[in-house]
Amino acid sequence: MKFIERLEAAAVKNDSLVCVGLDSDVAKLPAGVDQLAFNRAIIDATHDLVAAYKPNTAFYEARGAEGIQALKDTCDYIRSKAPDALILLDAKRADIGNTNEGYIRFAYDYLGADAITLHPYLGGEALAPFLSRADKGAIVLCRTSNPGAGEFQDQYIDGHKLFEHVAKMVASDWNASGNCMLVVGATYPEEALAVRKMVGDDVWFLMPGIGAQGGSVEQIMTAAQNSRGTGLLINSSRGIIFASSGRDFAAAARAKAETLRDEINTYRKAT
Amino acid sequence: MKFIERLEAAAVKNDSLVCVGLDSDVAKLPAGVDQLAFNRAIIDATHDLVAAYKPNTAFYEARGAEGIQALKDTCDYIRSKAPDALILLDAKRADIGNTNEGYIRFAYDYLGADAITLHPYLGGEALAPFLSRADKGAIVLCRTSNPGAGEFQDQYIDGHKLFEHVAKMVASDWNASGNCMLVVGATYPEEALAVRKMVGDDVWFLMPGIGAQGGSVEQIMTAAQNSRGTGLLINSSRGIIFASSGRDFAAAARAKAETLRDEINTYRKAT
Repeated sequence: MKFIERLEAAAVKNDSLVCVGLDSDVAKLPAGVDQLAFNRAIIDATHDLVAAYKPNTAFYEARGAEGIQALKDTCDYIRSKAPDALILLDAKRADIGNTNEGYIRFAYDYLGADAITLHPYLGGEALAPFLSRADKGAIVLCRTSNPGAGEFQDQYIDGHKLFEHVAKMVASDWNASGNCMLVVGATYPEEALAVRKMVGDDVWFLMPGIGAQGGSVEQIMTAAQNSRGTGLLINSSRGIIFASSGRDFAAAARAKAETLRDEINTYRKAT
Repeated sequence: MKFIERLEAAAVKNDSLVCVGLDSDVAKLPAGVDQLAFNRAIIDATHDLVAAYKPNTAFYEARGAEGIQALKDTCDYIRSKAPDALILLDAKRADIGNTNEGYIRFAYDYLGADAITLHPYLGGEALAPFLSRADKGAIVLCRTSNPGAGEFQDQYIDGHKLFEHVAKMVASDWNASGNCMLVVGATYPEEALAVRKMVGDDVWFLMPGIGAQGGSVEQIMTAAQNSRGTGLLINSSRGIIFASSGRDFAAAARAKAETLRDEINTYRKAT
């Protein structure tokens, strides 16, 4: 089954455009709860409310081989508990072509992830091993959510900013297999609107940056949804998984995920 | 001790600007030799000829938790066998600021690497956790070695190409701690010359792309060394570690590393 079909189906399943970021920093876990147990509890509490989970590899690599095992066990658990939810591996990788095969073995074969986030700097020729996989998503960094994102991304090339060139290239060329998404920070609604106008309805956005980073759901829904009231996943990490630092963390996460799903749906265009 | 001081000392120690890329793809290892044993044999055979080793994480992540353990054991072995050789972790990472702390724990605390390669797309604000560490190297992708590198890197911004803007920003701003290097592909000697003219003598280059990718040692030494006959490490991966697929692989690797060291030194400016 094609990635884009599974993405659309996942959003319909729970009537949700929510992605929960599993940024499970061990320094922030409730006392006595390990990384895998924490993730399982979060997944148990939220799996009927979300379209996707997004584990960020940094929080697992930080623990070395043990952390990578916890990441794999987390991915296995998502598949068993929520087989329709997508696993978006936030790894922000990209190397030259033959080396990317190693990352593909990690993300798709070992972890069984459905998609991976990618830096665009090396160009589409280098990313071909990801772009050619219609069954897996290639989520390209376009406009990142961080305050200093504009240092290169806002530089003008022939009258358009670099991030717009990335968006245009992805939509017109890299997306030949129909498996590309774009990372567009929820902290930049004007830029999200520009990208939506540029790529049309069919390219989905992954949008981090609400909550701790300051993005507004209303603003980004106004700017970034497509004409069908879809076309984007809004990610929340810390705002959901660390909603409570106590023993009620899973229930608190569920409440935040439900509130976010419902808030997003309030702003969706009727179809 | 500052990274740049250790880098300069490593080059002096063995009179070598060679970096050996430990791209130890398990599909290419000699029969009966596992990844760690292979790396140990390569290190045993080459440690008195090189300035640095560059394991590329993709070839270890491909094996999941076991591969990460082999990568850690490889780094430990380099430190025990060749304490002056630098470990340049070719991970090509970059995320937003707080997330990068996880990659720092992986690269510097867990593996004990001396430096990490980084994508520039998110800007210097995001990379601050790496840039602020004078004891560790931040090796920024500038001009990559792949055939399609120019798709974005060659786009003109105010009369200079994107990769030149990256070089200029690194030299003038990101390098405040004196710990930055630039990745400049050995397949692009003209671009390497342009970057050298732009950044002066003090920024070192990490140059992949000779051998299998086609770069010429003479051309890049002419283009990229600084006025002191140094300022660059030339990486060879497959050309050294897979010089022979038989039981003599370590001896064959040693011969290739020695030839490369001597060829590079032939073209170094006298100081």
